[in-house]
Amino acid sequence: MKLKVYSDRLSQPVRAVLIFCKVNGIEFEEVRVDLSKREHFSPEFSEINPMNQLPAIVDGEFKLFESHAILIYLASSYPEVADHWYPADVFKRSKIHSVLDWRHSNLRRGPVTIVQNTVLAPMFCRPFNPEGAAEGEKLLSAALSKIESFWLEGNGPFLLSANQPSIADLSLVCEIMQLELLDEADRNRLLSPYKKVQQWIENTRNATNPHFDEVHKSLKEIKEQLQK
Amino acid sequence: MKLKVYSDRLSQPVRAVLIFCKVNGIEFEEVRVDLSKREHFSPEFSEINPMNQLPAIVDGEFKLFESHAILIYLASSYPEVADHWYPADVFKRSKIHSVLDWRHSNLRRGPVTIVQNTVLAPMFCRPFNPEGAAEGEKLLSAALSKIESFWLEGNGPFLLSANQPSIADLSLVCEIMQLELLDEADRNRLLSPYKKVQQWIENTRNATNPHFDEVHKSLKEIKEQLQK
Repeated sequence: MKLKVYSDRLSQPVRAVLIFCKVNGIEFEEVRVDLSKREHFSPEFSEINPMNQLPAIVDGEFKLFESHAILIYLASSYPEVADHWYPADVFKRSKIHSVLDWRHSNLRRGPVTIVQNTVLAPMFCRPFNPEGAAEGEKLLSAALSKIESFWLEGNGPFLLSANQPSIADLSLVCEIMQLELLDEADRNRLLSPYKKVQQWIENTRNATNPHFDEVHKSLKEIKEQLQK
Repeated sequence: MKLKVYSDRLSQPVRAVLIFCKVNGIEFEEVRVDLSKREHFSPEFSEINPMNQLPAIVDGEFKLFESHAILIYLASSYPEVADHWYPADVFKRSKIHSVLDWRHSNLRRGPVTIVQNTVLAPMFCRPFNPEGAAEGEKLLSAALSKIESFWLEGNGPFLLSANQPSIADLSLVCEIMQLELLDEADRNRLLSPYKKVQQWIENTRNATNPHFDEVHKSLKEIKEQLQK
């Protein structure tokens, strides 16, 4: 039974998992769960993930959710995945865990809070909330500033001075890509102070294309719909 | 050079790391960083962890922060750690990653929000905030309810129906133990609907004593100080 990835490409961590599978040649079936129709609360999907969140996978009999856990599982189980995505070396691997854990309480909250209180509010029947969005901008700036000054310190093109991307690059860059839903002027205002961050997004995009652009195309389509 | 654990026992994830080391006979030096004196923002500690958070470790030349990353590093690097803490089996290990990731955006926020807006507010020069505490109680109840109905489903004494504890049990139980800082009546009100959760806390305590009680003794001392 082929790997199933439960997916709505509006979700940052879903996109990270999809790109990871495509870049590494892991065969899978993408099963659409429409967040805007609340399909993640359906009885069928609750059987897959009782936490009602995306992404989730089913691989044979094995069910798993939480994107970092999924990325690590895939990197550990599919021999076609190159070592740099999730290095066997315990020191390199531990640093990647540290970045991934840091994302949860730091980078995760900024982009989500901004888009949910602005462009995505109508889709989820929520009011526009400029104070909420401003709070999200503060969280985002604090996180981007730490990425710029610490996680990207050194001269490597990727996090932790690495020469090749890891699952941490993919997870964090997909998070920041959610800002594509904003007006270009707003996005530029938020990202322009962070030159290394911008270059690193481009490096990650180049290292994973054409899959990166293909998976993120949905985001542009959603933006166009929202603008209409 | 012996392992150094940078520690304030007021911190839930610090306690998880300390108990883990003690239970597994890992020798370490506990280096105190007093959160109430903002020592985590000192230049010395910023060299150890530029994110200015506890816990952090230094093992020889290797620096690491984020408690889950630390627990996984220790379990992977110290051969005296039994397999059940972080199983080599990829399916068991993946489920533990899933629990750990879930904690970040779910269980983590409840107890922290409650105590920071009530009993710990004076220590950090913040006003009491009953609305904030009420929000924290909602988050806590939602998380405990998922632990009770999903992570503790089945008959094992530990998460994921396991017969022995993993790093996930230790991390999550230490989080909930922060409620010890509250009045006993409040703590009982919050925990009493969750019978399996209460039994699991007791199971984890028994499996890791006398270290569990010894490390949590500081919490009782802090509570007594706050009551004075």
